[in-house]
Amino acid sequence: MAIGSLKRTHYCGDVRADDIDKEVVLFGWVQNWRDHGGVIFIDLKDREGIVQIVFDPSVDEKIHQEASKLRSQYCIGVKGKVRHRPEGTVNPNLKTGEVEVVVEKLEVFSECENLPFPVEEYVHVNEEVRLKYRYLDLRKPHMQRNLIMRSKAAFAARNYLHSQGFIEIETPILTKSTPEGARDFLVPSRLSPGRFYALPQSPQLFKQLLMVSGYDKYYQITKCFRDEDLRADRQPEFTQIDLEMSFVEEDDVIEVTEGILASIFKEVAGIDINPPFKRISYQEAMDRFGSDKPDMRFGLELKKLTDIVENTNFKVFRDVVEKGGIVYGLNAKGCIDFTRKEIDDLTKLVSIYGAKGLAWIKVKANYELQSPIVKFFSKEEIDGILKRLDAEPGDLLFFMADTPKVVYDSLGALRLEIGRKLNLTNGDEFNFVWVVDFPLFEWNEDENRWEAMHHPFTSPKPEDLEYLESDPARVKARAYDITLNGVEIGGGSIRIHRSDVQKRMFKALGISDEEAQVKFGFLIEALKYGAPPHGGLALGFDRIMTLILKEKSIRDVIAFPKTQKGVCMLTDAPSEVDEKQLNELSIRVRKPKKD
Amino acid sequence: MAIGSLKRTHYCGDVRADDIDKEVVLFGWVQNWRDHGGVIFIDLKDREGIVQIVFDPSVDEKIHQEASKLRSQYCIGVKGKVRHRPEGTVNPNLKTGEVEVVVEKLEVFSECENLPFPVEEYVHVNEEVRLKYRYLDLRKPHMQRNLIMRSKAAFAARNYLHSQGFIEIETPILTKSTPEGARDFLVPSRLSPGRFYALPQSPQLFKQLLMVSGYDKYYQITKCFRDEDLRADRQPEFTQIDLEMSFVEEDDVIEVTEGILASIFKEVAGIDINPPFKRISYQEAMDRFGSDKPDMRFGLELKKLTDIVENTNFKVFRDVVEKGGIVYGLNAKGCIDFTRKEIDDLTKLVSIYGAKGLAWIKVKANYELQSPIVKFFSKEEIDGILKRLDAEPGDLLFFMADTPKVVYDSLGALRLEIGRKLNLTNGDEFNFVWVVDFPLFEWNEDENRWEAMHHPFTSPKPEDLEYLESDPARVKARAYDITLNGVEIGGGSIRIHRSDVQKRMFKALGISDEEAQVKFGFLIEALKYGAPPHGGLALGFDRIMTLILKEKSIRDVIAFPKTQKGVCMLTDAPSEVDEKQLNELSIRVRKPKKD
Repeated sequence: MAIGSLKRTHYCGDVRADDIDKEVVLFGWVQNWRDHGGVIFIDLKDREGIVQIVFDPSVDEKIHQEASKLRSQYCIGVKGKVRHRPEGTVNPNLKTGEVEVVVEKLEVFSECENLPFPVEEYVHVNEEVRLKYRYLDLRKPHMQRNLIMRSKAAFAARNYLHSQGFIEIETPILTKSTPEGARDFLVPSRLSPGRFYALPQSPQLFKQLLMVSGYDKYYQITKCFRDEDLRADRQPEFTQIDLEMSFVEEDDVIEVTEGILASIFKEVAGIDINPPFKRISYQEAMDRFGSDKPDMRFGLELKKLTDIVENTNFKVFRDVVEKGGIVYGLNAKGCIDFTRKEIDDLTKLVSIYGAKGLAWIKVKANYELQSPIVKFFSKEEIDGILKRLDAEPGDLLFFMADTPKVVYDSLGALRLEIGRKLNLTNGDEFNFVWVVDFPLFEWNEDENRWEAMHHPFTSPKPEDLEYLESDPARVKARAYDITLNGVEIGGGSIRIHRSDVQKRMFKALGISDEEAQVKFGFLIEALKYGAPPHGGLALGFDRIMTLILKEKSIRDVIAFPKTQKGVCMLTDAPSEVDEKQLNELSIRVRKPKKD
Repeated sequence: MAIGSLKRTHYCGDVRADDIDKEVVLFGWVQNWRDHGGVIFIDLKDREGIVQIVFDPSVDEKIHQEASKLRSQYCIGVKGKVRHRPEGTVNPNLKTGEVEVVVEKLEVFSECENLPFPVEEYVHVNEEVRLKYRYLDLRKPHMQRNLIMRSKAAFAARNYLHSQGFIEIETPILTKSTPEGARDFLVPSRLSPGRFYALPQSPQLFKQLLMVSGYDKYYQITKCFRDEDLRADRQPEFTQIDLEMSFVEEDDVIEVTEGILASIFKEVAGIDINPPFKRISYQEAMDRFGSDKPDMRFGLELKKLTDIVENTNFKVFRDVVEKGGIVYGLNAKGCIDFTRKEIDDLTKLVSIYGAKGLAWIKVKANYELQSPIVKFFSKEEIDGILKRLDAEPGDLLFFMADTPKVVYDSLGALRLEIGRKLNLTNGDEFNFVWVVDFPLFEWNEDENRWEAMHHPFTSPKPEDLEYLESDPARVKARAYDITLNGVEIGGGSIRIHRSDVQKRMFKALGISDEEAQVKFGFLIEALKYGAPPHGGLALGFDRIMTLILKEKSIRDVIAFPKTQKGVCMLTDAPSEVDEKQLNELSIRVRKPKKD
């Protein structure tokens, strides 16, 4: 690191009392500029931190004169001597707070024009402006910390995986539609006019082929692509830690995954997350938390009430039960003071999930009940409900009667919202849960057919194989998802490695032989040539980093993210292109139809 | 690693004499099957190697019976006891050659249908078939070695870079045209109809922005994309080890690059490549080797003869000199026996580079000269030529008179071809050379304007800055390329970090302010806010692996490469897509015009 005669000796943030009396050379940016009694003090910042540098006219008047022209975010290099700060000016909050550097040589590499926003932490800036001037936004200490930690996390994961005998193998970005079922990004081919590559939604099929090829343990930290309408925690391109192993069962993949996560959390957060993590079945997760990615940092569990109210006089509940629906309750412990407005807001929340209303009971002193619905229940029913819900004075009880899907989704969302309102979700805990025993299929109401809950290459449990055709609903998958604080951070499965089972699976999904051949023919073919049993998993790296760094958005752990409309504010991508380029690619832009 | 009760204890290739009498569990593929006197011997193979397993009917008749049904490439698991091989059957060429495993338990995971080609080394298979059944091709030991070594190489590079304080930062794949000037792959945007992302030809602008953001040392091992007509050593997607550093000069980047290469070669080939590597100026490389990527494993250097023949009676040469051209010779040492046909082939070769012919002189015993041109020269000229070329009896001298470009290109190619014919290029040497002092510009004959020899962000040498407008031809760049055995494996430069210089550079290239703004506005803007001096480099990882593994094609170091037409034979990508998908993307396929 040298510019002419200046050879860097330290990062700014690394100067210490040990260096006192040493000559140092530092490069960095002017963060603060103060004049105290004719002496100029500057906080010089680089990626490792800040150090105070001093321009004293009694040391060198010319340099002091030059320093008086420095302004915020000028990029400079200095040579000087480290000294102890004068008594009373030591800053114990700063790693370099004991020392300062008296400058003897100054070089200004670049000046800085008027900034669009101050490059300082905690100044609120509109996100679109942050993204447009991302190079300034990324100069902020917490963004630098995020990207540095991301790099350390990836390296920790790689170290662990290599120590376990994994081989990193790159799979293609210009490829064919993969089986995840989301919308593909397409790339027109110039050399094959009218044909398109697809960007991979995951390396799924390639990594399975690598197992067929005998690589035994594959991993890759790689970009995946989905052209979906973007939600807060989605990006059109995202990064997965992707792995696959041969000759394994569920426990092998789970153990390796726990090892990766332990390495990352140790490196980034300095904590032991102590695997093995708890496991919960899909059905138990739905019953207790109304979600297949349960946030188990807090209770507020759902309770089944169907059996208590199946013969009730309350027609709304009884009708639901008669139609095969279910009735569940949730005790919002100590929430009796929720206002009418708060309850209305919660009712609005659950309506998003299809709930037609939200019944409630307030439990007052001496178990006096306040509720619009209590009058419909028998004493026996009321007693049963209160007992099942552990109701005590001060509690607010919620009820939902509907199809299982609506009940789980709406009470699951209600539970999370109440958890947030009660501040049960903002502690320091990292709560990992494996969700296992997923159904292999789920029913697609719209298309009136069974769909793969994960993907069509997921292996059924051996004991359920015989029901693949006769009773798909009871077939469980050899799949496992890993959740952290209620966020799904990864998932995987043991795959089908027998071509006969793979064919039955396609059939059960209503995929014709021809369609299977066109889409996945090469995989079906590969399974004929001595495919090993294998399984794997993918972790969502962006999400993991968001959670570990306690950021609100994955955009804060990605150097150059896109907006929710898929736009890069910095480069203005996507952009218009020349007609000539489109001609070469044998495509043209379709004029939007007017409605 | 467990399937039911079978928990792997060893990789096949890892069983040793130390393991004798131990119970082992192995998983792998049947590589060879032999019946010797009723006992079945199988070579069981996994990614780490081969071990002999034995099915002896006197040990277990039932298992012996099952083993008799095993065929090539069946995937199996076995449990058994390790024993010393009987005397006389030890195989010292095999790491496991002292031992064999007597099988007590056998599980067949998958059978294997008739193979499209034998999964054995050294059986020649047409490359298209290899690529179609890539999962079988990748089972071959040398392909497994290639990919395993590639993984180790990448990890070694990362280890080195992290040890040097580099931070890995991911840059976008869905982005905007970058300044390399090759053809972009485009990705139509669904959310912004009529607009397109481009896949990056390199992370050039993003890594410069990361320097502006203060990350100091960035690296990434990442895919880059160029939609070019593919040559033998090109792929539409390829992998770069990409880096950028702040507050550096040429020597800093060169030193880090040498460190990366040393780490890789130590890890993969087990050798010390002993940096620092030699450096040669662009002009010297052209003068001596006719190439800016000189293969310096052998001599056969070009020699300038212009001064000797400038007044010759040989009109062909004199005319060239009078028009500003040059005359060079090359001594093909000891090649006097080249036949007429061989010389004709060489003449054809140089004609590719625009040469109108290839003059030659054979130096026979007693310096008797045989040549179609010797009669045109004076004795003084002949003496000068022979002396300059160190001609001795037995030599074949070649001559070229033309524009510098044609002379360098054609004699450079001639030199390489003669080197190959003389077996000077197939040793074990790894010969690294830095080429430095490149011109900043090169003249584009077709478009009648100056172009950037590297890219428009390359910094001119400070001492040449004043000639940027007045004499572009004399301006040297702060650029450096690294070549290995005559192949360019990487290149980089110190960048322009001052917005005023960047503007002058665009102007010198005939890029209007408006065009610069549209294409690179964000970079020009970024340089206004305290940009540090910075520079970097990118290494072509596929090419490095090809050279280190002594493969002929980069396709042999890439798991799933494409053909020269950009087709993936395995998945059949690129492929046709549904009209619905095109509709969503607001594009349509343009019917090819009939000529």
